[in-house]
Amino acid sequence: MTDDLKTRLCDAVDANFDQQVKFLSDLTAHPSTRGNEQSAQDFMAAELTTRGYEVDRWQIDIEDIQHLPGFSPVLGPYDDAVNVVGVHKARSGRGKSLILNGHIDVVPEGPLDMWDSPPFEPRVADGWLYGRGGGDMKAGLASNLFALDALTACGFAPAGDVFYQSVVEEECTGNGALACLARGYTADAALIPEPFSEHLVTAQLGVVWFQVHLKGRPTHVAYAGTGSNAIEAAIPLIQALHEMEHRWNAAENRPDDYAHMDHALNLNIGKIEGGDWTSSVPAWCVFDVRMGLFPGQSIEAAKAEIEQVILDAARENAFLRNALPEIVYHGFHAEGYALSQDSSDNAAMAISALEQAHRSVTGTTLQREAITATTDARFFGLYADTPALVYGPRAEAIHGFNERVDLESLRRITKATAMFIADWCGTEEV
Amino acid sequence: MTDDLKTRLCDAVDANFDQQVKFLSDLTAHPSTRGNEQSAQDFMAAELTTRGYEVDRWQIDIEDIQHLPGFSPVLGPYDDAVNVVGVHKARSGRGKSLILNGHIDVVPEGPLDMWDSPPFEPRVADGWLYGRGGGDMKAGLASNLFALDALTACGFAPAGDVFYQSVVEEECTGNGALACLARGYTADAALIPEPFSEHLVTAQLGVVWFQVHLKGRPTHVAYAGTGSNAIEAAIPLIQALHEMEHRWNAAENRPDDYAHMDHALNLNIGKIEGGDWTSSVPAWCVFDVRMGLFPGQSIEAAKAEIEQVILDAARENAFLRNALPEIVYHGFHAEGYALSQDSSDNAAMAISALEQAHRSVTGTTLQREAITATTDARFFGLYADTPALVYGPRAEAIHGFNERVDLESLRRITKATAMFIADWCGTEEV
Repeated sequence: MTDDLKTRLCDAVDANFDQQVKFLSDLTAHPSTRGNEQSAQDFMAAELTTRGYEVDRWQIDIEDIQHLPGFSPVLGPYDDAVNVVGVHKARSGRGKSLILNGHIDVVPEGPLDMWDSPPFEPRVADGWLYGRGGGDMKAGLASNLFALDALTACGFAPAGDVFYQSVVEEECTGNGALACLARGYTADAALIPEPFSEHLVTAQLGVVWFQVHLKGRPTHVAYAGTGSNAIEAAIPLIQALHEMEHRWNAAENRPDDYAHMDHALNLNIGKIEGGDWTSSVPAWCVFDVRMGLFPGQSIEAAKAEIEQVILDAARENAFLRNALPEIVYHGFHAEGYALSQDSSDNAAMAISALEQAHRSVTGTTLQREAITATTDARFFGLYADTPALVYGPRAEAIHGFNERVDLESLRRITKATAMFIADWCGTEEV
Repeated sequence: MTDDLKTRLCDAVDANFDQQVKFLSDLTAHPSTRGNEQSAQDFMAAELTTRGYEVDRWQIDIEDIQHLPGFSPVLGPYDDAVNVVGVHKARSGRGKSLILNGHIDVVPEGPLDMWDSPPFEPRVADGWLYGRGGGDMKAGLASNLFALDALTACGFAPAGDVFYQSVVEEECTGNGALACLARGYTADAALIPEPFSEHLVTAQLGVVWFQVHLKGRPTHVAYAGTGSNAIEAAIPLIQALHEMEHRWNAAENRPDDYAHMDHALNLNIGKIEGGDWTSSVPAWCVFDVRMGLFPGQSIEAAKAEIEQVILDAARENAFLRNALPEIVYHGFHAEGYALSQDSSDNAAMAISALEQAHRSVTGTTLQREAITATTDARFFGLYADTPALVYGPRAEAIHGFNERVDLESLRRITKATAMFIADWCGTEEV
């Protein structure tokens, strides 16, 4: 790629950056928590249509994906789970193809009183955009789209096919990205601008979600001795799960990408609900757990051990022994994935192209990071033989209060993405 | 009272008992959980009106009661809190007056799948009536009403004023009974047929309800080390509260009525809720606690100690130290009450009258019991100088699943209540 084109792409991103921030703000204003993504997807589809992309908008059908590797179980129906893909078909077709992926779903905002300003009324201050989902990862949806716009502004289109994906379900199952695969969207590489501080993600963990359902023997609290408190029965099970977490993190179990991390695998009690009445011994309690896995760790083996740990702890409790907890899988069955293990030429070329783009924009070497979360990258990497580059802007407090994304970082990512597209796909005149 | 009248009253109860069971079944079919008592109170008001009682039906106004001793704080409005009182004014006025009290509110039914049959579709089987509230305490509302009916059937009315009370809020505050006091309903004695197996309750515990609100520092679970899990932060606080419970139950702290009980005071974690998302470190958790107190134990001192215990435990946690839990009182501020400590002539006479009635019906001595719960008796005993006799039928699984009341026990209680009314109030011809 010529220096001239690099400069022109950067200038185009700069010229359009106010518009990009407005787009990000408008998109972040859609409260697209799970089940509520429709208006945000309408917005995305309209933006893609305006730009001339062919838009594919469809409701996910579990029948289409449940037999596929990487599928995660879901508890509810998928009536409201809609993916949007904007398709650019290259005229020449001589360049490599690319998937630009981002997720539209955001995690719940939590108690409003812990936010300094309303989570779905985005605001810009001191170079940051604040709002739930602004960082994770609507900024990434914006950089993908405005990087393409920069090419257009320079009079070019990618010389390979580009599939711009706005998917649901990244935060709980990944079934949105899986549904894109099932629909036939494949390419020579994928880019996912998740907010990891302009680093290239070289490895990501697997994640399993499960619920533990406990039943107690309810009674009036006056006779608490004869009942069994389902809420308190959860405590030793949680402790046993933390002992398992400790074992799994032991040095001898860590793959190379995580060798330096004492505690990469986090077990999180993310949600709990139990009981109906203060003066009744609670008859039930359900708690939700997220547990990380290393790349290479088998989901089925992990589940078997989790179940064993819970049931062993339950059997030590006189009451639970006769009313064993039920374990329900209600989300992620996500395997770990390490781009670092992809020895294909495609992977090497894609990484090299991104390194050059990053250096051109920032003047620094692209840093690599093994992350302690999962992303949709696993679908491309594990199940479609496609190197998936996770590379996005700096954000803070994702999943927390006052989530925010660094706008100058977003600007750099957008520029680097534009250069990466031009390099990877090649360009052709519009 | 003549043996002839006793026999006639018993015969009248028997003659009408099928009707009484139907009444109990109809009343139990009303799902009168807190906030949903209106249809059950309509039913009660109609039954009282049909029988010729003057009916007083009013909405509780917090302004009328919040300054009174025994008031318990409430979190919500009282728009839906309605009491019903049926008034019998004696023509002669030469007998003693009596309050017949019962509560219409029932505790939540919990998960339906743990019931053998629907909780609000009462059924009779093997001498029991099953259904939420059937025992606690709609059977008592039935025995009070049908005992009066038995007098009527014999051609008599009580020769003292009788106030038949159907109150709300017994299960969470007692503010329904307090509102009756505030409205001017007082008498020489009160009878409350709570389901304590035909025993006379000589002492009852106090109860305090509180909620502990915890805030965590939320973050994506990938960075769990930097967040603080509000759900798990609850665990050491619960443990500290159980240590307090243990201290309070120590032998040296027990009054005579409870000297023989190792564990009269139960601390119950009745409800918990926390977190929004499995993969977010939870930002909040609230758990609801019920703690018993001995008669004579000060509510204010108990609250101070509870707060101290929670805050001391919180200060041992690196995170909670800087985000101390909030303690919210959302129900019972109930003092203990011991009829056994009432040395008035009125109390002695009332107990004696009940003993005789009980012996006449059952052929056995009235057993006494110090109970590990509270009842509305405290309002009459502590704040209106009125001996309150708690004496009702045998029930099982109150606050549990498949709650049921023993119908032959209900029949005996109804007969004994009829005799007690005739003895205590005297009779006059209708």
